[in-house]
Amino acid sequence: MPPPAPGDREARRKDVSEAVWQVLAARGFGGLTLRAVAAAMGVSTGMLTHYFPSKRALVTHALDLLEENTAQRSRRARPSAGLGGARAVLLDLLPLTPADAGRSRIWVSSWDLSLADDALSAQQADRYTRLRATLRPFFETARARGEIPAGDPEHLAAAAVAFAHGLVVQALFAPGRFPEEVQIAMLDDFLTGLTLPRPPAGGGGPSPGR
Amino acid sequence: MPPPAPGDREARRKDVSEAVWQVLAARGFGGLTLRAVAAAMGVSTGMLTHYFPSKRALVTHALDLLEENTAQRSRRARPSAGLGGARAVLLDLLPLTPADAGRSRIWVSSWDLSLADDALSAQQADRYTRLRATLRPFFETARARGEIPAGDPEHLAAAAVAFAHGLVVQALFAPGRFPEEVQIAMLDDFLTGLTLPRPPAGGGGPSPGR
Repeated sequence: MPPPAPGDREARRKDVSEAVWQVLAARGFGGLTLRAVAAAMGVSTGMLTHYFPSKRALVTHALDLLEENTAQRSRRARPSAGLGGARAVLLDLLPLTPADAGRSRIWVSSWDLSLADDALSAQQADRYTRLRATLRPFFETARARGEIPAGDPEHLAAAAVAFAHGLVVQALFAPGRFPEEVQIAMLDDFLTGLTLPRPPAGGGGPSPGR
Repeated sequence: MPPPAPGDREARRKDVSEAVWQVLAARGFGGLTLRAVAAAMGVSTGMLTHYFPSKRALVTHALDLLEENTAQRSRRARPSAGLGGARAVLLDLLPLTPADAGRSRIWVSSWDLSLADDALSAQQADRYTRLRATLRPFFETARARGEIPAGDPEHLAAAAVAFAHGLVVQALFAPGRFPEEVQIAMLDDFLTGLTLPRPPAGGGGPSPGR
């Protein structure tokens, strides 16, 4: 059989990506194997090794797909600056729609893989660094505008990412308990907490039982 | 070879559990295979099938081990009630020490597996329900004592679990960025936010850019 023409190769590559996504959506990274992707495409595992000579190549492609799919999602309109902008970034992280939930589910599933691999772990740490760096300027502006009291924007970004990702996990396991409006109300409560005047650090304000 | 005596069997069972834990700690649930556990014990995969006739039996044992190990961890002394009690429960969730981090890492790794399996997913949802139910009475008392303003204790519990678990994930990927004292300071900031007087719902208070 002659090698496929460039156009065919492109089309086949798209088929491969769709099959990888389908396997990830149904089984996560734990279920991502050459065999499963080949079955989803209706081809032999041998054929697939032309595209992915190893499990690692398959995983790398799957992570690239996940990044691409995440970058291409329809984002909420973002106010240019301030707390409203941070809110828009954080809403984009939550599994509000079935498509968002599918993507979130694959991200959460990738953590197992990443934690077991130094290179992937470093990539995930970088992703967190970039996410905090995306949020930080919004908190800086919010502080400058007086929307939030003084506070380290990097710490606020880390706290906001923590809140959002922990909500993602809870919501994925109990979508009925955390429908879209509950997730949004929880995020807004969290953000309102950031706007409230704080007692001076180390002062005699309310203390959570230290 | 005769079957092992009951005492031997008990000792062997302990060896098996230690090997399962060792594999989980190094590779997560994604790397948990009969072959890997057998290699960690220095026995044949065939021998191990006496204990685990299937991958599913191995996974079930691993999840049981994780629950046991988590239940047996040395817990912080818990004030009997109020916000300080909630704080102690939440501190127990964070990867503050290397042992905590090892356990957290295995929990996070289990989510991939659980999301891909309806029965395991339901078990994880139940775990979240129990965790919120553990926290709720502390928030109820905190409210009754006036430590926190009015608010639904179930919502507060869900928010606190979200914050803690999202912090777990970030800290696992960047332990240098999130040492023990940073995690504790972040949790205390979050709890302080819960103690602040809130503007009336739907009122004219600060709004996060709705």
